[in-house]
Amino acid sequence: MPSFKIRLAYDGTDFVGWQRQASGTSIQGLLEDILRELDHRDLAVTGAGRTDAGVHALGQVASLTLDRTISEIALVRLLNARLPGDVRALSAEAVSPTFHARFDSRAKKYRYRIWNQDVISPFERRYAWHVTGGLDAAEMAMGARLLEGRHDFAAFQAAGSEVHTTERQVLSSRVVTEAPGLVLYEITGRGFLRHMVRNIVGTLVEIGRGRHSADWMGGVLAGRNRADAGPTAPARGLFLVGVDYGDERQELEAKACRTALTACTITSSNEK
Amino acid sequence: MPSFKIRLAYDGTDFVGWQRQASGTSIQGLLEDILRELDHRDLAVTGAGRTDAGVHALGQVASLTLDRTISEIALVRLLNARLPGDVRALSAEAVSPTFHARFDSRAKKYRYRIWNQDVISPFERRYAWHVTGGLDAAEMAMGARLLEGRHDFAAFQAAGSEVHTTERQVLSSRVVTEAPGLVLYEITGRGFLRHMVRNIVGTLVEIGRGRHSADWMGGVLAGRNRADAGPTAPARGLFLVGVDYGDERQELEAKACRTALTACTITSSNEK
Repeated sequence: MPSFKIRLAYDGTDFVGWQRQASGTSIQGLLEDILRELDHRDLAVTGAGRTDAGVHALGQVASLTLDRTISEIALVRLLNARLPGDVRALSAEAVSPTFHARFDSRAKKYRYRIWNQDVISPFERRYAWHVTGGLDAAEMAMGARLLEGRHDFAAFQAAGSEVHTTERQVLSSRVVTEAPGLVLYEITGRGFLRHMVRNIVGTLVEIGRGRHSADWMGGVLAGRNRADAGPTAPARGLFLVGVDYGDERQELEAKACRTALTACTITSSNEK
Repeated sequence: MPSFKIRLAYDGTDFVGWQRQASGTSIQGLLEDILRELDHRDLAVTGAGRTDAGVHALGQVASLTLDRTISEIALVRLLNARLPGDVRALSAEAVSPTFHARFDSRAKKYRYRIWNQDVISPFERRYAWHVTGGLDAAEMAMGARLLEGRHDFAAFQAAGSEVHTTERQVLSSRVVTEAPGLVLYEITGRGFLRHMVRNIVGTLVEIGRGRHSADWMGGVLAGRNRADAGPTAPARGLFLVGVDYGDERQELEAKACRTALTACTITSSNEK
């Protein structure tokens, strides 16, 4: 019964999200269908982050256990031969059968891309939120920093969510502008509430537009009321960058990769 | 009769190319159809480079003359309101009625993107040639430099082409690797033969794979025989980066933009 940890990248545009749904194509569903054929039995694939419809991944991590014996590299090849081009297995690693992609993760990193120019590039339209009118990225950056630490993030939780606690630990919350007209928000945390990153981004953009100062973010956080925060930013700008299990290099990607959607994000232990 | 110089970006994936064809959607056809409605008469839109089916543009330039008076900014907005999302007008500039996008261009710059890792990113599959097996980029770079200058490029011309002369002047021909696993070829020239850039790239990849040394490029060039060169690289990796008319800053984009498909390429005189 070999168990594997699989790293995946996907363009979420045409999917209902990570998780299998009653209808529509999900990443989890695609993987489970391929592996069922391989293993001649039903099996479950667990993802580290349950990305919503339209959300992308540069480094999603999934765990699964097979009946059949297969090498790491053969598993990657088999998956990529059967997956559509908008989903790729980047690597597979044999792990202990107790490994769980979600429960064992120490932190997840998300990136949100905001295109802040009059005209959006044809190459960005699926991968960024197009916000026109100049954004004050410095003010946004100050607001973003106020979210670092352990807080009750109820103000940024999707309406109707039911979770045990809305307290979460955010390790890093930064706004960076690496290229003119491209504002990036990067957040690393131990766990996230539903729509939390997109609701934070919607709130940061209110600050960027000058409707509120950076300090307002602290008030919204303290108020714990969803109605006080900004709107939910669209899914297409959001990327699950990577998942940290404490067993590999922390620096998930070089600084130069921030503006690129792609380069440097494909680094697989099987490619060496 | 105001005349305009228009800068355009497009994702060429779903088009038959720049030029209007008997069937299929072309960029030129889209523009002419929109402007015919505006101007209530047939008119011609001339492109600086006639990009083939599947070839992309970060900075195509087109010229056109209208009957109707319209401001630069209104023309950009009108076009973007009617064009599909995979084509964007970046800027419009009122020019002399004698301006001709192709004949007046001093140089055009193309970029070709090669993805050289085992697995291709889902975000690159439409925008790069996926070449597996390590490429020797340093050897490719030496081969590329041999094309600089005024030469007869008959060896790199599409079969069946009929042109007055196959002599062309190449100002710059460089292979650069800005990110691991992403090999870029950039060529600037006064004019290009049909499929010239893609045939050069196919030849460079033969060198990168170690089938020939860099010097072989000189022999292929001197031989003027298409059969000696490498295969035609796929259209999806090719981008028309920009066109130089000697009237604007030469540096078409910052170095940092090389790995990104997008950022920094959208700089429009109308956005200031």
